Amino acid sequence: MQETEIATLGEFGLIDKLTEGFECRNASTLRGVGDDCAVVDTGDLRTLITTDLLLEGIHFDLTYVPLKHLGYKAVVVNLSDVYAMNGTPRQITVSLGISKRFTVEHIAQLYQGIRAACDEYGVDLVGGDTSASVTGLIISITCLGEAEKDDIVYRSGARDTDLICVSGDLGAAYMGLQLLEREREAGAGQKDFQPDFAGREYILERQLKPEARRDVIAEIRLLGIKPTAMIDISDGLSSELLHIAKQSNIGCRIYEDRIPIDYQTAIMAEELNMNLVTAAMNGGEDYELLFTVPLHQHELVEQMKTARLIGRVTKPELGNFLVTRDNAEIEIRAQGWNAF
Amino acid sequence: MQETEIATLGEFGLIDKLTEGFECRNASTLRGVGDDCAVVDTGDLRTLITTDLLLEGIHFDLTYVPLKHLGYKAVVVNLSDVYAMNGTPRQITVSLGISKRFTVEHIAQLYQGIRAACDEYGVDLVGGDTSASVTGLIISITCLGEAEKDDIVYRSGARDTDLICVSGDLGAAYMGLQLLEREREAGAGQKDFQPDFAGREYILERQLKPEARRDVIAEIRLLGIKPTAMIDISDGLSSELLHIAKQSNIGCRIYEDRIPIDYQTAIMAEELNMNLVTAAMNGGEDYELLFTVPLHQHELVEQMKTARLIGRVTKPELGNFLVTRDNAEIEIRAQGWNAF
Repeated sequence: MQETEIATLGEFGLIDKLTEGFECRNASTLRGVGDDCAVVDTGDLRTLITTDLLLEGIHFDLTYVPLKHLGYKAVVVNLSDVYAMNGTPRQITVSLGISKRFTVEHIAQLYQGIRAACDEYGVDLVGGDTSASVTGLIISITCLGEAEKDDIVYRSGARDTDLICVSGDLGAAYMGLQLLEREREAGAGQKDFQPDFAGREYILERQLKPEARRDVIAEIRLLGIKPTAMIDISDGLSSELLHIAKQSNIGCRIYEDRIPIDYQTAIMAEELNMNLVTAAMNGGEDYELLFTVPLHQHELVEQMKTARLIGRVTKPELGNFLVTRDNAEIEIRAQGWNAF
Repeated sequence: MQETEIATLGEFGLIDKLTEGFECRNASTLRGVGDDCAVVDTGDLRTLITTDLLLEGIHFDLTYVPLKHLGYKAVVVNLSDVYAMNGTPRQITVSLGISKRFTVEHIAQLYQGIRAACDEYGVDLVGGDTSASVTGLIISITCLGEAEKDDIVYRSGARDTDLICVSGDLGAAYMGLQLLEREREAGAGQKDFQPDFAGREYILERQLKPEARRDVIAEIRLLGIKPTAMIDISDGLSSELLHIAKQSNIGCRIYEDRIPIDYQTAIMAEELNMNLVTAAMNGGEDYELLFTVPLHQHELVEQMKTARLIGRVTKPELGNFLVTRDNAEIEIRAQGWNAF
C-alpha cells in the first residue's frame, strides 16, 4: 500500500481529499463541509452546526493554562464559528476523554469554565460523552446555532469592490502564547518561580480567555450593515483571507497601516525580536471576525466601533496582496497554524 | 485541594456531578443531558443531537479492528442513539485526532467506512475538525436527526403494566470481542498466524460491523406500535433497563428464558467457560433497541419479527429483577461497561 505522510497534505488538503465526492442527499442539508458551520434547514429557521477538537499537547499545555480558562476557551472557539455565520449559538455538547492523572476536582474546574461561557453567551449544555483516555485530556465540543434564512453569511459571498473589515486587533493571542512559553522555560526546574506578567495582561487574556465577537454582530445589525462574506480568525488573517478569496473567487488588497495591533502586542514582538506584521497576519487564535461589505455601505463601516476597514476586494486575477507602508506589494500566503 | 479519583464516581456519576445545576435557558432546548439524544425545537420538526467519542486503546484496538470497519461502527453507534428516540438521522460531523503513525491511506480507509455508513443510512457528512494527536486515533462524531414532535420516545415514559421488548439478540458483540482477543493472544509473536474464525462469522460481525436498528423502527411504525420508553443497548441490557427504571420511576421483571441469544453466542460462551446470561445481560455493544409498549398493544408486539417480549414494567417499589428459569429472582445491577 502507498504510504503518504499526512503532513504532506496538511489539514485542509487532507479534509479536501477525504470529503471529495461526499454528496449531501438530505434536502435539509443546505451546506456541508467548507464553511465555519454546516447549515441545516429546520423549517422556519436554519440550524448551524460547528465542532472543534482540542487535544492536550497539541492545542493546549496545562503547565500554563488553568483548566477553568481552558473550559471557557473550548466553548468560545465554537461560538465564534456560529457568530461568523451571523447566527446565534444556542446549544453545545461536550465530550471529554480523561486520563488517569485527572481527578474529579480537575474536571470540575474545567466545567466551571464551560459553565461560565454558557452563562456569558446564553448557551445550553445539552449532552456529550465522557470516557477514560490513555493519555492526556481530549475536549470535543459541538455547537448548534440558529439564524434566519436570509441572515446567514457564508465565506463565498464577497464580490469585487467590496470593503474588507476586521474586528478588534490581531496578533495579541499569539504574542501571549510566546510570553507564556518564555516564562515556562525561564521557570523550568525552579520550584517557586514567579513569572512576571506585569503590563502584559491584555495579551495574556487574549491567549487564555478569548471572547467570541457577539458585540461585532450586534453592531453590524444595529447599523444595518449586511456583510457579503464572513469568517472568524482562528488560523491567522492570511489564512482566512485566502479562504474567502478562494470560496468567493476574488482577489484582495489589504494595507499594512490599517492592520489593527495593540501596543502590548507591539512591545512584546519588539522584546522577542519578532516581526510584528507577521505575528498579526499569521499568529492565529485571535477569534476576531473578518468580513466584507458592499462598497456603498462605506459610511456605515466608518461608524463601526468594533471593526475597521483594512482593504478591498478585487478581481481574482489580481491575486491577494498585502500593501506595505512603503507601497511594496507582498503576496499573501497561508502560513496558518498547521497541526500536522 | 481535595482529590477524588474519577473511578470512584464512574462515568454516570461524573456526568451527574458535572452537569448538576446546569439550567437550559433557551426556549428551543426541550431536553438536555440524560437521554440518548438532546432535543431542540426547530419549528415544525424537532432536532435530535447525540455525540460519541471513540478512543484508541479504550474503545478499539487496531490490532484486530480494520480501519474501514471502525469508521462504519463509529457512525452507526451515533445513528443508533437517534433511532432510540424514534427519530431519523440526517447529518453527522466527524472530528479526528491522528497521530504520526497514520498515513493518508489509513485515514482514507477509515473514511471509506464512514462513507459506507452514510450511504447505507442516507446520512450527510456536513463538517468536522481534523488535527494531529500526540498518541493514538481519536474519533468524535456528532449526529443530528429529526423527528415529528409527537413521535419522540424518551427514556422516561414507561408506565406500570407496560410490556418490555428487545430487538435482535444479545451478548453476541461481547462474545465476538472475546474471540478476537483470544485469537490475538494466540497469535502474539507469530508472523503468519491465521486466526480461526470459521463458524463464528455472526459474533465477529456483531462486534466489528454492528448495524443501527432502523428496521425495528420501521416495523414498529408499520404495526402502529407506540413505545412509551426506548433506549439503545450500548452498555448492556442490565444497565439500560436501570436507566429506563430510574428515569420512568418504575420497576421491572424480565425473564431469563425470554432473553434472545444466538447459538454462536452460546457456543462461544460454553467454549470460554463464561456465563451466557451474564454475557447477554452485561456484554454491551449490542446496539439493539430496548423499549416498552402499553399492555393493550400486546397482540401487535406478538406480531413483531424484529423484536420480542422479555418482561413487564412494575411499580417502582417492586425493584428490578431477572426471573430465572427455575423461578429465582435475581436483582438487576448495572455491570455496564465503565471506561474509568
